[in-house]
Amino acid sequence: MNIVSTTREIKKMIKDYKKQGKTIGFVPTMGFLHEGHLTLVSKSGSDCDITIMSIFVNPLQFGPGEDYDRYPRDIERDIELAEKAGVDVLFTPDVNELYPAEPSVSVKAVERTDVLCGASRPGHFDGVVTVLSILFNIIDPDKSYFGQKDAQQVAVVKGLAGSLHFPTEIISVETIREQDGLAKSSRNVYLSDQERTEAPVIYQALKTASEIYMTDGSNAAIEHFKHELSTVSGDIDYIEILTYPELQVPSESDTRLIIAAAVRFERARLIDNIIFTTEEETACSDQ
Amino acid sequence: MNIVSTTREIKKMIKDYKKQGKTIGFVPTMGFLHEGHLTLVSKSGSDCDITIMSIFVNPLQFGPGEDYDRYPRDIERDIELAEKAGVDVLFTPDVNELYPAEPSVSVKAVERTDVLCGASRPGHFDGVVTVLSILFNIIDPDKSYFGQKDAQQVAVVKGLAGSLHFPTEIISVETIREQDGLAKSSRNVYLSDQERTEAPVIYQALKTASEIYMTDGSNAAIEHFKHELSTVSGDIDYIEILTYPELQVPSESDTRLIIAAAVRFERARLIDNIIFTTEEETACSDQ
Repeated sequence: MNIVSTTREIKKMIKDYKKQGKTIGFVPTMGFLHEGHLTLVSKSGSDCDITIMSIFVNPLQFGPGEDYDRYPRDIERDIELAEKAGVDVLFTPDVNELYPAEPSVSVKAVERTDVLCGASRPGHFDGVVTVLSILFNIIDPDKSYFGQKDAQQVAVVKGLAGSLHFPTEIISVETIREQDGLAKSSRNVYLSDQERTEAPVIYQALKTASEIYMTDGSNAAIEHFKHELSTVSGDIDYIEILTYPELQVPSESDTRLIIAAAVRFERARLIDNIIFTTEEETACSDQ
Repeated sequence: MNIVSTTREIKKMIKDYKKQGKTIGFVPTMGFLHEGHLTLVSKSGSDCDITIMSIFVNPLQFGPGEDYDRYPRDIERDIELAEKAGVDVLFTPDVNELYPAEPSVSVKAVERTDVLCGASRPGHFDGVVTVLSILFNIIDPDKSYFGQKDAQQVAVVKGLAGSLHFPTEIISVETIREQDGLAKSSRNVYLSDQERTEAPVIYQALKTASEIYMTDGSNAAIEHFKHELSTVSGDIDYIEILTYPELQVPSESDTRLIIAAAVRFERARLIDNIIFTTEEETACSDQ
């Protein structure tokens, strides 16, 4: 595995790959890798000739008072995991490499952002689409891989690639879970033992609520979720049922929906979601 | 010359060029071509293997009440001129091709925009950087050519390419002028005969003012310009002396400056500028 930290180096490397006709899969991450990330690598490895992973904790997508400084980092462990998973090139730029000067333009996410996580994290998705525009321009990947756990991010990134015609296919990969159903997340390390035993309730309650939605509608589903979560020490940040990937309040004719929640524990805010269809469908496309 | 109007077609064509190792020069225009545009084509032709010109009157960069509807168009004549000038591929997408849906992200020019043309055209440069992001993503040019007449546009576009790391070199080409000094512009056709005889005063006054700046400073230079223009029927929209390409108010240590003006005639608003250095310099780089 090659480890490069400058855009100059990685662009040279990519130019060579392209000359050889190789296809490039890209897995952007903020590091502190877990099985979810490694599944993205494995998917990229089966689709593309070369897999490039970036590790960059992007200051632009953290608001004031959010956890930029204490976001977990462990580059030595990440290098080991990335290499084992089959990453060909690990791109680890520092902040000055991607933002060498105060940016004179920025990318704004103007749709799909005023609900779910976007509602309580103003500017967060602007930071996401700005850094991804930069990374797409540097790496020029054929395909880019994102975890479906960050469902709103996937929706926003599909909007980015579509609206600005970025020549990369956005591929979302199913959420990887612990045996008890808890979605894997870099932030899970901040749960206390007690919180860790409670946290799987989030996914269980989402599952039951999505079933209740089918028979009894939105209010009943949401009430059920709130009731289930009343037994845990975390506070519900949001619980919403929306169309996917448009993230609009659903009408009766909408069949592809997301139920998504965020729960705030003492040192970690966890998110999870289920995408489901209200009609019998065998295949899903969320492009 | 190939004429294509769909992104699908042009992307296929460009893929083939890249496979053959050909370099691509890009000349984005809004059509109604004049010698200025053709000079960009000629520069691209001498730098690159393939020259692609786009003709697209971008609704996003016109404000309410601006001249989007009556912006001059003559595609038959443009095709003839582009072919003669040596364009290899003419890209003529319609609005739905570049903006197939309401965009869910947009690009904002946050610096270099609150002066000169930007001050009286809020949102104009957001439209420019959004459409250029789309065109850069579709065409993936090695070099992109812009006329120095639109000096603020050049500054903003250099900011765009730099901030978002677009892999295209932004090349600015000197303003092409009529024999009497008037900068060539698609909008010159809207000048009355009387206005056409007056309009060259703009460039003459900018030249003299830039010389006066050297000896007597900013106020004297601007007063001179205003005095010279008092004889013409058009009204001064702005006259400013700024650093280039940062477009800040200059301090004594700044040596690379722009003097730029806009003058509003009855049916046409004309702009012009001179970039000059206050110290003896032999070479200029405005990257």
